[in-house]
Amino acid sequence: MMIINFVTSNKNKVLEAQARLGAGFCVRQWDVDCPEIQADTLEEVALASAQHVIEKHAPKEAFILEDAGLFVDALKGFPGPYSHFVHDTLDCKGILKLLESANGKGRNARFEAVLVYTVPGKKPALFKGICRGKIAESQAGKNGFGFDPIFVPDGESRRFAEMKPEEKGKYSHRGLALGAFANYVKSLKV
Amino acid sequence: MMIINFVTSNKNKVLEAQARLGAGFCVRQWDVDCPEIQADTLEEVALASAQHVIEKHAPKEAFILEDAGLFVDALKGFPGPYSHFVHDTLDCKGILKLLESANGKGRNARFEAVLVYTVPGKKPALFKGICRGKIAESQAGKNGFGFDPIFVPDGESRRFAEMKPEEKGKYSHRGLALGAFANYVKSLKV
Repeated sequence: MMIINFVTSNKNKVLEAQARLGAGFCVRQWDVDCPEIQADTLEEVALASAQHVIEKHAPKEAFILEDAGLFVDALKGFPGPYSHFVHDTLDCKGILKLLESANGKGRNARFEAVLVYTVPGKKPALFKGICRGKIAESQAGKNGFGFDPIFVPDGESRRFAEMKPEEKGKYSHRGLALGAFANYVKSLKV
Repeated sequence: MMIINFVTSNKNKVLEAQARLGAGFCVRQWDVDCPEIQADTLEEVALASAQHVIEKHAPKEAFILEDAGLFVDALKGFPGPYSHFVHDTLDCKGILKLLESANGKGRNARFEAVLVYTVPGKKPALFKGICRGKIAESQAGKNGFGFDPIFVPDGESRRFAEMKPEEKGKYSHRGLALGAFANYVKSLKV
């Protein structure tokens, strides 16, 4: 059994990580103050947050933290690292409005998640998950959160918010990043 | 003559500050690495940046730094602290698109600037400038930068980008914050 400290204020992310990592892991929330910087990439944001936690709290145990966002091709990657703020202000309907006259490839987008794993005294390891898809022409579905009601992953006709959590997990950026992390820590034990 | 170290990567801001503060001051650029955090208010962003500069560089002299943004009422304050990123991605035309069907008060907006003044060993002082106005229905003008081509300050019919720098300076958020700062430091000398 491996204990994973997850620096996040979002309990749903902890539950999602526990479900994805399975019985060999025990994921516990570490809800510590952790500012995010303004940067163009999730990698920069997540690494700076991890560095902040190390400098302020000098943890003696390993921890993970994660940053995620929606990147719309035709909007030059907007809302990207600022997806949370943009969801709070413009909401899904703002993205739909911005893409009102876009068709076909003009609606291409991707969800990205970057997970940072830090072990005291070692260089942080990064794991990235990317889920490509399209922005739907309307909102639908009640599952998930954030921009899930307008995102249709490639190979699907349903939006994330129309899927059960375990279905979403197969495709999702967060699921992919967690899977890569799980493979990494399992490989270290062999 | 008072020397003012201005932490910024933007030379235009230095020139604007020198012009506003006048002959009693010498504004010099200090282009030091200074990450901005993600936060809901400019005050939080600017104070965290100042704190970072103090912790990383332990400056022996006083310095100022500034954060500014456009806040659209009907968009819950979007783009706010992320105005730079939103300008780089959506540009002025994205804001116009989001407000396409808005009339009258629905186009109300404000520019805000927060200036932080830190003296070694003292608590930072904050100066805020707010310029209220409206988002125009189209872009025009070639002066200024950022969202100046779509912002009409109250009491004017022209956009910021249609004004000469000295005209804009009378209304502008940055001009107001610099003026408040200038009055403060002058009052200390009396």
